[in-house]
Amino acid sequence: TPMSAKSERNEPAASQPPKRIEPALTAGRKRFFPTEAIPRLHYNDPKANELISQERPVVLTESNLVTTAMGWSLDFLKINLGEGYFSVYFSDTDKFRYFDEKKRKDFGDDFLVGLERKDMKFPEFVELIRNWKEGDKRIYLQQALTDGVGKRIVIDFLGFNWNWINDQQKRNNWGQLTSNLLFIGQEGNITPVHYDEQQNFFAQISGKKKCTLFPPENFDSFYPYPVHHPHDRQSQVDLDNPDFEKFPKLSSIKGHEAIVEPGDVLYIPMYWWHEIESLADSGIATSINFWYKAGPTGKIEYPLKAHQKVAMMRNIEKMITEALNNYEEVTPFMQSMVLGRYS
Amino acid sequence: TPMSAKSERNEPAASQPPKRIEPALTAGRKRFFPTEAIPRLHYNDPKANELISQERPVVLTESNLVTTAMGWSLDFLKINLGEGYFSVYFSDTDKFRYFDEKKRKDFGDDFLVGLERKDMKFPEFVELIRNWKEGDKRIYLQQALTDGVGKRIVIDFLGFNWNWINDQQKRNNWGQLTSNLLFIGQEGNITPVHYDEQQNFFAQISGKKKCTLFPPENFDSFYPYPVHHPHDRQSQVDLDNPDFEKFPKLSSIKGHEAIVEPGDVLYIPMYWWHEIESLADSGIATSINFWYKAGPTGKIEYPLKAHQKVAMMRNIEKMITEALNNYEEVTPFMQSMVLGRYS
Ligand SMILES: [Zn+2]
Ligand SMILES: [Zn+2]
Repeated sequence: TPMSAKSERNEPAASQPPKRIEPALTAGRKRFFPTEAIPRLHYNDPKANELISQERPVVLTESNLVTTAMGWSLDFLKINLGEGYFSVYFSDTDKFRYFDEKKRKDFGDDFLVGLERKDMKFPEFVELIRNWKEGDKRIYLQQALTDGVGKRIVIDFLGFNWNWINDQQKRNNWGQLTSNLLFIGQEGNITPVHYDEQQNFFAQISGKKKCTLFPPENFDSFYPYPVHHPHDRQSQVDLDNPDFEKFPKLSSIKGHEAIVEPGDVLYIPMYWWHEIESLADSGIATSINFWYKAGPTGKIEYPLKAHQKVAMMRNIEKMITEALNNYEEVTPFMQSMVLGRYS
Repeated sequence: TPMSAKSERNEPAASQPPKRIEPALTAGRKRFFPTEAIPRLHYNDPKANELISQERPVVLTESNLVTTAMGWSLDFLKINLGEGYFSVYFSDTDKFRYFDEKKRKDFGDDFLVGLERKDMKFPEFVELIRNWKEGDKRIYLQQALTDGVGKRIVIDFLGFNWNWINDQQKRNNWGQLTSNLLFIGQEGNITPVHYDEQQNFFAQISGKKKCTLFPPENFDSFYPYPVHHPHDRQSQVDLDNPDFEKFPKLSSIKGHEAIVEPGDVLYIPMYWWHEIESLADSGIATSINFWYKAGPTGKIEYPLKAHQKVAMMRNIEKMITEALNNYEEVTPFMQSMVLGRYS
């Protein structure tokens, strides 16, 4: 179960404002597309709230959302994170492309993922990351915080700025907080471009991450895997080696970019594409995200918005996959329905 | 309302067996695809019932289904068909490609149909067809028989072989008889390839028609118009001028062909593609069809059959068109969902 004590405490969090560092937008991998900077605003700036309510990305400064976690070094966590098991991913490359384990099972043997999950206790992870050397598989811990963590972590967790974030949840009519994922990864790790079906406040604790976002209007440009595929919600494109012949619409993308540093909170709107790169020479990158379900749908207005169409496609794809009862029939079915008829 | 007296009379129809003429499969237009002959069987042959139950086409002989209509000449109909108005289609070419008048309205002005409907009394139609000369628009009457027809027609209608056809309906678990369409057209008229969503017994009264059928497995080969298009259920291909570059899968079709002559009844299974050509030099072609709704779905078995997938696609296309609330958004939506993802 996710940690759930947050609604019990409403006092302001301990104030320990992070250094405000201007983003260095030239950092990280060189990419083929132009970018604009995601606005960087004080968390109390009315313009920040306006962007969030419009489901547009923004970097919030001085929110103190996870200030109490600023002391979560590997040594501190080794002592306080508890006896539970943590999901650690090992990648053949610098990319950690998420896959759905249930869909992978359904999909059969013809899916090679290049990514392996091992569950281990935290000290084992610390050993691995400390003794890591060039040529070893890269490592990324991604684990939801649960009630199994130690008491010191619970206290820090209760000290998060729930006041502010609960207010955001209410103000934007979001659903429930589903999880807080803790990310601890090596510099240079990349989470390739994908979208999530939840609203996300992404809080940086240590290291720097370059986050590149693209609006849901770019659905076509990223050619997401079929919904029944283990890489559902992931783009098929490789931004390091773009194949414009296979993915012609990729050439026209334009990114929204931010470097998030300790103390920053990035709002990643639901259905926005995002790639996250732990910047080289910025140390171990630690982040916590706050994932919220979408709110109730409300009145439908036409024309539908891009994110509503994405949700619609997902439902249609699921329905077809279920009705055919065999994922191998989905592609020919889709082709019959569309090729030469709607193309 | 369709004529509905048929269940009140169960005696065998007046016996007046039609000449049995061997089909001349070389008649009609030359086409680019191979064909096989649709089996031609006595209506009481158990093999005929087996084909019908398997939803495979068959020409039934000596059924006497519409023997009482064999005297329906233009002169007879002029006197007896009654004072109602009849739908008469005028075509710029020899093709009468049906369009949905409601969808045409929704579709806006960018749809030119080349086909015009006029409603007229029967004698006016007889005048037109009798005085027709080369260069005039071709003419095709297509009108459901209703209670508005004259008494002599009702008597003939009651004399149809309802015994046999009601038994077929029951035996194959079909739904209700929805209509009897009367077709009267000039030799050389063509109803281009399309499919219907009903089971059809197609009974020939005068003239000869070449009927070419293709199974629902050929859905891809015929590239049907989008469901929201006025030409829904019609193929986009022109079998007289096949465009294999635009419609590459068209090249591999194989037809099931029959020449139906007076007294013959062709079973056209639901969702089977069919093209119907009134043969040159065979006089005015008169036919009556018997359209039945599909029966209840029953237990779903996997893999789904081709006709079930066609029904599924239709539902998905309708759902999408309705949800988007603008037919112009359907094509880009379909493309987003499929191109580069399922193709
Ligand atoms: Zn994500
Ligand atoms: Zn038809």
